[in-house]
Amino acid sequence: MLPFARVSIIGLGLIGSSVARAVRATMPTVRITGYDGDADVRARADALEFLDDVADTAGAAVIDADLVILCVPVGAMGAVGAEIAADLPADAIVSDVGSSKETILNALTAALPGATIIPAHPVAGTENSGPEAGFATLFNGRWCIVTPPEGADPTAVERVIAFWQRLGANVETMDAKHHDLVLAVTSHLPHLIAYTIVGTASDMEEVTRSEVIKFSAGGFRDFTRIAASDPTMWRDVFLTNKDAVLEMLQRFSEDLTALQRAIRWGDGDQLFDLFTRTRAIRRSIIEQGQDDAAPDFGRSH
Amino acid sequence: MLPFARVSIIGLGLIGSSVARAVRATMPTVRITGYDGDADVRARADALEFLDDVADTAGAAVIDADLVILCVPVGAMGAVGAEIAADLPADAIVSDVGSSKETILNALTAALPGATIIPAHPVAGTENSGPEAGFATLFNGRWCIVTPPEGADPTAVERVIAFWQRLGANVETMDAKHHDLVLAVTSHLPHLIAYTIVGTASDMEEVTRSEVIKFSAGGFRDFTRIAASDPTMWRDVFLTNKDAVLEMLQRFSEDLTALQRAIRWGDGDQLFDLFTRTRAIRRSIIEQGQDDAAPDFGRSH
Repeated sequence: MLPFARVSIIGLGLIGSSVARAVRATMPTVRITGYDGDADVRARADALEFLDDVADTAGAAVIDADLVILCVPVGAMGAVGAEIAADLPADAIVSDVGSSKETILNALTAALPGATIIPAHPVAGTENSGPEAGFATLFNGRWCIVTPPEGADPTAVERVIAFWQRLGANVETMDAKHHDLVLAVTSHLPHLIAYTIVGTASDMEEVTRSEVIKFSAGGFRDFTRIAASDPTMWRDVFLTNKDAVLEMLQRFSEDLTALQRAIRWGDGDQLFDLFTRTRAIRRSIIEQGQDDAAPDFGRSH
Repeated sequence: MLPFARVSIIGLGLIGSSVARAVRATMPTVRITGYDGDADVRARADALEFLDDVADTAGAAVIDADLVILCVPVGAMGAVGAEIAADLPADAIVSDVGSSKETILNALTAALPGATIIPAHPVAGTENSGPEAGFATLFNGRWCIVTPPEGADPTAVERVIAFWQRLGANVETMDAKHHDLVLAVTSHLPHLIAYTIVGTASDMEEVTRSEVIKFSAGGFRDFTRIAASDPTMWRDVFLTNKDAVLEMLQRFSEDLTALQRAIRWGDGDQLFDLFTRTRAIRRSIIEQGQDDAAPDFGRSH
């Protein structure tokens, strides 16, 4: 049995368009309606034909949905919630794909009083944006974290879990606060660090930008991928998961200072010990199918 | 005309074994002799058959070479130089592949007075180590930086350049000091940051290691690749290119503090501006063939 029959997707970028494509690939009888606030994106999504219907307003998109998934930047969730409030069917479940769950839950609860809200976060993506960037297998073997609010209807939670499992994801549930802490480490801090170092490298006087680009295969290029992620999405993540990000950043800075000191004082043993420990983490990630075992991410040589 | 006829490779790990395989692939008539200080590595290299001959001592490996390439950790260059000093033919060129050129030039000049020393650094590699990890196309389309000392014989420099071009690399020459600054940005700082964040993430109490691994596709896993690089090699790089690394680290820390402040005070515009600028750098890296254009580094989905 399918968990939902009529899915509405608001926001047709990388994630929204991937959800639509994945629904079509795995649950072909489900009717998929989509909407995006940008008329140009709506037209492109329409031409790409991964939706059954493109609506002209957010309200029209949800009018007969049994699942509404908001795939907009975190900072826009409340406003989009308000846009659909009048047209949302009473028995529809509202979910989302955003990366800072406590803020989103608060915004949606305020915008949609009485609605069944079951937030979720598929931990998957690429550095590309827009409806052309999506693909049906994006969630295959990745984890989706469902963060039901206290007192959530267990059946509604089960249906959202079943939906993501259908799309190929593994599902784990946790509360929003813990999610925000975990993602601060595994996603938000890495993005912040990557954005920073790419900025640092492009603002040098003694080393030209041309040199930075030419010799980027020494390691730098790895950071440029996630530093090419969507600016609006990431601005909102940092502003809405501020406390957890600042906490993790503080720990990172302390660890970096300790390494800086080890380099300054020539403490090779401390460096060697850390560099040996970090190897083990990568092995576990590969063993658990969360990254490619091929060297260099499987880049072609 | 081939730039060299008898190449000796000291150090048979990822880079040394890749050089050997690339020489065999692109200059099959060249005789390749190898040596590694670790008897087990010598035996494995012998079994892999990418060398014409595996010598029992460093001295025996260089005895009739016209090019000797030292592919050992930076901190071992001086000692290996001393090991080959007595057997090095007078007309042989000594080169290397190390990542901090000023230290290496000083160490080799001291160990091999009167020898023709033309240091080089192919900016290429993977996170794997050992003779099994090498492959012939590692240097294809990558840059190799040659850092001739002042007053170096121009013919010797030309021959080393020609050698690397034969292996598929683009070659640029610069002085050792500038190389060390450039690589501090494009390679050493990225590795230091990656090692740090992987260490930070594995030392948390509130977030388990299992969670870090499961949800690593949010960005973290990208950092684990270079944090799985060879610990000895990287310890030596940080200890020998200390000044440039500390200088770059200082700049990075200042930029990170500015972002931290922007997050704390909710300055979304500053975040958005940086995140937009950093996108452009990745585009240039891809346009110049220094990374895969495929999303997510071309990882399989």
